[in-house]
This record gives sequence, C-alpha cells and structure tokens, in this order.
Amino acid sequence: MALIVQKYGGTSMGSPERIKNVARRVARFHAEGNQVIVVVSAMSGETNRLIALAKELQASPDPRELDVMISTGEQVSIGLLCMALRDIGVAARSYTGAQVPILTDSSFGKARILEIGDSAIRRDLEAGRIVVVAGFQGVDAAGNITTLGRGGSDTTGVAIAAALKADECQIYTDVDGVYTTDPRIVSEARKLDTITFEEMLEMASLGSKVLQIRSVEFAGKYKVKLRVLSSFAEEGEGTLITVEGDKPMENPIISGIAFNRDEAKLTVLGVPDRPGIAYQILGPIADANIDVDMIIQNIGYDGATDFSFTVNRSEFEKAKAVLEGVLQHIGGREIMGDNRVCKVSAVGVGMRSHPGVASQMFRVLAEEGINIQMISTSEIKISVVLDEKYLELAIRVLHRAFGLDKA
Amino acid sequence: MALIVQKYGGTSMGSPERIKNVARRVARFHAEGNQVIVVVSAMSGETNRLIALAKELQASPDPRELDVMISTGEQVSIGLLCMALRDIGVAARSYTGAQVPILTDSSFGKARILEIGDSAIRRDLEAGRIVVVAGFQGVDAAGNITTLGRGGSDTTGVAIAAALKADECQIYTDVDGVYTTDPRIVSEARKLDTITFEEMLEMASLGSKVLQIRSVEFAGKYKVKLRVLSSFAEEGEGTLITVEGDKPMENPIISGIAFNRDEAKLTVLGVPDRPGIAYQILGPIADANIDVDMIIQNIGYDGATDFSFTVNRSEFEKAKAVLEGVLQHIGGREIMGDNRVCKVSAVGVGMRSHPGVASQMFRVLAEEGINIQMISTSEIKISVVLDEKYLELAIRVLHRAFGLDKA
Repeated sequence: MALIVQKYGGTSMGSPERIKNVARRVARFHAEGNQVIVVVSAMSGETNRLIALAKELQASPDPRELDVMISTGEQVSIGLLCMALRDIGVAARSYTGAQVPILTDSSFGKARILEIGDSAIRRDLEAGRIVVVAGFQGVDAAGNITTLGRGGSDTTGVAIAAALKADECQIYTDVDGVYTTDPRIVSEARKLDTITFEEMLEMASLGSKVLQIRSVEFAGKYKVKLRVLSSFAEEGEGTLITVEGDKPMENPIISGIAFNRDEAKLTVLGVPDRPGIAYQILGPIADANIDVDMIIQNIGYDGATDFSFTVNRSEFEKAKAVLEGVLQHIGGREIMGDNRVCKVSAVGVGMRSHPGVASQMFRVLAEEGINIQMISTSEIKISVVLDEKYLELAIRVLHRAFGLDKA
Repeated sequence: MALIVQKYGGTSMGSPERIKNVARRVARFHAEGNQVIVVVSAMSGETNRLIALAKELQASPDPRELDVMISTGEQVSIGLLCMALRDIGVAARSYTGAQVPILTDSSFGKARILEIGDSAIRRDLEAGRIVVVAGFQGVDAAGNITTLGRGGSDTTGVAIAAALKADECQIYTDVDGVYTTDPRIVSEARKLDTITFEEMLEMASLGSKVLQIRSVEFAGKYKVKLRVLSSFAEEGEGTLITVEGDKPMENPIISGIAFNRDEAKLTVLGVPDRPGIAYQILGPIADANIDVDMIIQNIGYDGATDFSFTVNRSEFEKAKAVLEGVLQHIGGREIMGDNRVCKVSAVGVGMRSHPGVASQMFRVLAEEGINIQMISTSEIKISVVLDEKYLELAIRVLHRAFGLDKA
C-alpha cells in the first residue's frame, strides 16, 4: 500500500464534469489499495474573478483581507470534489489550509510554509477515507488565513507529500509530461521519462510552464518523488523528476531546449569601468520594479565598458526611460536597445562532464548563419540571445544536433 | 462610548457600490465614538449559486461539505467590506466564524451556537479597529465549519451582541422598520417605533419577513436591545424591539396586522371522536414532510367530529393525497379542501388585558360581510382563515378599527 499525493490544477477542476473526472481518477487509485491525498486549486478563472472584485473596493487591496477572500476559491473546490467522490460511493473529507493545519509565516499573498500537522489527515487515511486539501493556502500562528502566491497549489502538494513522507507526489496538468522542447515548434519533441530537479529548475526558470519553480525547489530539498502527468489522458507514466545519480545509467548531455520569446535587450555603452557601476545601473531599474533576467558585462577597454541586460519585452520602454534618466549621472555615453530578441537555452546535467557542449551549440548556430548577441551560462545550461526571427530555426537545429529527437 | 453590533443582509451587500455604502455608514458610527462590530451576509444570490453548483456534483450534497462550500459567500463579504473600510481610511479586521470563534454543535446546515469567544474581538475594538464578522457560520469543537441555516446571519448578529454585551444590535434590511401592516396593501400603515419581542415573534411566524424568528427568540432570551433599520435610508430610528414593561406608557392593544396569502385548508369530516385521532391524521402528514400551521378540532357530536388544519398552498395536493390514503383506516367520512384561503392575524400584547379584542375583530369582519372559516388564538394574537378574495379588505378594515392608522 502506497501513500500518493495528487495535485489537480484549475483547468482540471474547471467544471462540474471535469471535477467528476478527477473524482473517478482519484477513486481508481484508491480502489487499487493506495492511500490518497488530493490537493486542488480553485476552478479556473475563480481567483481572477475574486481579485477583480477586490479591486473594485480597494485599488490596492489590503493583503490580509485579499487572502481571506481569494482563499475561498480552493475552499469551494475541496467541498465539490468531496461531494463528487461521495456521489460515486467513496468516503472523503475536505481540509482547508487552516484545518490541516498548514502553518505559514505571515507574509500575506506570498507566505512560506513553516510546518504541516499530519495527525488529523493520518486518522482519515487510516480510516480508509480520501483526504482532499485546499491548495495555495495556509494559516499563520495567530490564526490569520494566508496564501502562498500564484502556483502555490503545486507547493502545497509537494509540502504535504514531504510532511507525510508520501511515496510519490503527482502533479496533474494539461500536458502529459515534460518535453525535450515545445512540440508546437518541433514536431519530433519527445516526452522525457525522467528529468533531474536541477534541469527542471532551469527549464522552469527559462520559460517552461509545466511546474512552479518553488515546488521543484521544495521537492528537491525534501527528496519528494515528483511526477508530472496529464489529467486528461487516461494512460501514461508522465515525467518523473529525479535526484541526479539515482539511476545507474548515464545522464544525457542535454535534456531539453527551453526558450523565451518575450525578451528585450538594453545596453549602456561606454560606462566607466569602476566598482559599483552595475549597481548604479541596475539599482534604479529595481526601484522601478522591473525584473532583470540576463546580465552581461565584458572586460573594459581604455577605462570604459559596455553593460547589457535583458528584461521582459513588456517592460522595455519603461526600462529604457529609467536608463535615460540616469545616463548622465553614471557617466555613460549612449543607450542601445532591441525589443525583438529571444532567448534559447540548452539544459542538461550531463554538460558538467562534457566541456564541449557550448562550442557545439555555437557551431550549430553559426552553420545556420544565426548571430549570437549575448551568452550566459550556468553549470547545467547555456543560454543565448538571438534575433527573434531565428527562434524556431535555432530550437529545431539544436534539438536535432543534441540528439533529442531520438529515444 | 457605546458598543454597537450592526448586521447587513445580502441585499445591502449586493454589489461593490452597495458595500461602499455600508462602509460609509459603519465609518460614521465609528467616527461618532462608538465601537462597532459588523456582521455581514453573502452577496445576494451567492449562496444560491453555490448550492446549485453543489447539486451538480451530488444530488443531495453531503452536509459537512456543503457547509465548507457555502460558508465562502460570507467569507468573501467580510474581506470586501474590510477593503472598502480601509479604502476610506478606517482600520478594520475580518473574522470568519472559526476565527472569532463562534462555537456551535455539529449539526451541519442548521447548527446551534454554543459559545462565542470574545477576547480577540475585544483586542481589536480596544485598538480602535472595526471588527467585521462573517454571519451564518461557525465551527464545531472538532474544527469543522458549520452553518446556522437560512437567515442565520441575524442570529450571528444577536449572538455576538449578547456575548459582548453590546449596547444595541442593529439589523439593517431593505425596509426601514416594522410596520403596523404591509404598506403595499394599506397606505396608512405606520412604522412602529417599538414592538415587544413576543409581538415580533408572532409577526415573524405569521408571515412578516423582517426578522428571522430564531434571532428574535435569541435576543429575547439574552435581553439584547434589537433594532430594525433600513440600509438604504440615510436617516431614521427604525423599530426598537423591546421587552414588555420596559416602558412606562401603556402598550397599544393591537400593534399590527399580519397576514399570509399562501394558505390552504383541509378538513376530515366525521372522524370518530376518540383519543389519538389527531395523531392518526397528522402523523402521516408529518411523515410526508408537510408543515402544518393552524389545527382546529371542535367538540364532537354523536361520537364523531370534524378535524381541520391548514398547510402551505404549495403542499395542498400532496397533503390531500396523503389524507385520502388514510381516510378508511381512521374511519373518517369525507375529505374537504380549499386552497383559496388566506390567514389574517391581529397581534398585540395589550390584548392580554383587553378581553373584548376578539369579539371586536369578529364584529368588524361581519359588518363587511366577511365569513370566518377558522379561528385560532394565542395570548397575544387572533388569527382567522378567510376566503382569499377578502384578504386586502379584511386587513384594511381591521387596521382602521384598531386605530393603527393614527400615530
């Protein structure tokens, strides 16, 4: 008998019919002799509806009261799923975050989980009941309702699995696993049977929407066996997220090609090459609440250097205006920008032991006449910034060059 | 400095604009130096929407899970009202039933309040904050969410006022007080400045929709000063519900004329006049889940009697079929029914000391040629069943005869 945590997102819970489908799937796992804890999100669209309602009362809603309100979306979902389970004759009991309890800090809207009580849930599991837990929410030490931030239901699932030492945490979504790249761009893209936590983290931060980054970090930290599956397909093993070295076989050099289409690039030319210049440029950007992605500073020449970074395309104009305001103060010569760029990344833990990966990547792109504008690397990924017109071509040739189209 | 509990129903909370109106009214009381606790219902229509959703998952929804779901309506309301208050610069904090805590028994869907914790609320009040409490809901000793049943928010308001020994509990609704009768039928109907608990109870059970019966009972039991006011009018003292004898002046003989249009009458003719016959007739009616209102059995003659009762008109056919099924068994002769009758009642604590009220009522009706079909009395009310075509006429002449049109 295994203990399985299953998490279903808003799309899977999007209508009474879909909730009934979830109930049937959960009941099947239960009938096979497993103990099952289900974590659910609000019905799709509900959280946005509640936030819009809140903004009609207060332009910038009070964080504590917003959490009181938006946590109701998941509370409705747990009640509905328990009813659907009881309707097909399966005993089930719902838990809000406060009832579990999922103890968090008091950072409303972005609370961190501190501790999870497991005694009540265990009693229900031992009595043969399915336990249905509201995702995304918790309670602080003073009894205030908190929420974990967007995508927090994945984190709830992983945290519950860690606290109860579940055999597996299954994240059900609208795709049937993690792919070598987006199948809409490369038809030969393959579903991966396994991927390491580190790779999954890079894929998530590089634009893959399959799993929330925080839940992957959490699963890695607490060694939770995490699996991504489709809630719409009847069959399939999905993709298992593994700890590196768990398996005897050698890891592939590259596991996937990630990309981000919505990039923009900004360069300050001729800034003095002196300590503190990066802060002088990026401080005002951070103050304007603009997230910076890649940052590149090359060696200086004649006491001056060029400083480049990328931002989300929607913040390009705002970032440019900020830079123009400080250009004189920092002693730069000129600002250049390009909002028609994209980022393509090769990710794989195998590159640690294969130093030739970067040069292979650059050669493949060069052979297609694709100019590389910026390069950034980590231990297990190489990212390049390109003219956006080359996005699909670059993904296709890299996918083939690294053998990702072959099983 | 007074401590005031204000309760606002679903219509008062029906839209963001209306919630802002509630916030302004609450803030005004607070600015006048009062401590204010606000109890709110779900936005109008929300509870019905949630119940309909539940029924799509389970035809007869599990009571525990239904309470988990439908309690979210009030939870959204408390968040929204606190935001509206903060938006106009007033400190406020919301409480779910479980956070107060409002401890109830475990009868899901119709829970009774056992105890209310006041320490957290008192701390907020003393810090100058407005406290906003979700009506209709509580929590049982095991931490399960419970609801108090329809109209339960009135009861929450009164119970909070009793627990905190509030100076007054104000129930805001869409009428500006309790009237001598329905102003849509009698244009001379007057708003009452005061009415006793007993009278209010009779008015409520006789069809007046102003206050939920349970909350009036509760207020009477715990001596809560209860006032009904309009949430839409800017001015007005509403109607104060008083304890009899609180005031030096003499009570009026009759305080109001209540009525119910949806009545139906059933009579079993020629039943044996023997012990147990009432149970033999009404037992099957109760088993069929039909509520019985008035019951009349006159003295027998020649060992037989006639037995009459009234039901809601919508249950007339069902009740008639039940009686036809048992007629032979109870030894009755015939069943007569009339579903075009109504009930008109005169209510007043003054009739205790004025024995002529009933005969005055009968005379007034006789003078208009209105035949009385059934009569039922209590210490402070006289009800008659009439052909429904006389409803408006009977109310008008009684309203005038008892001097209710004069201030």
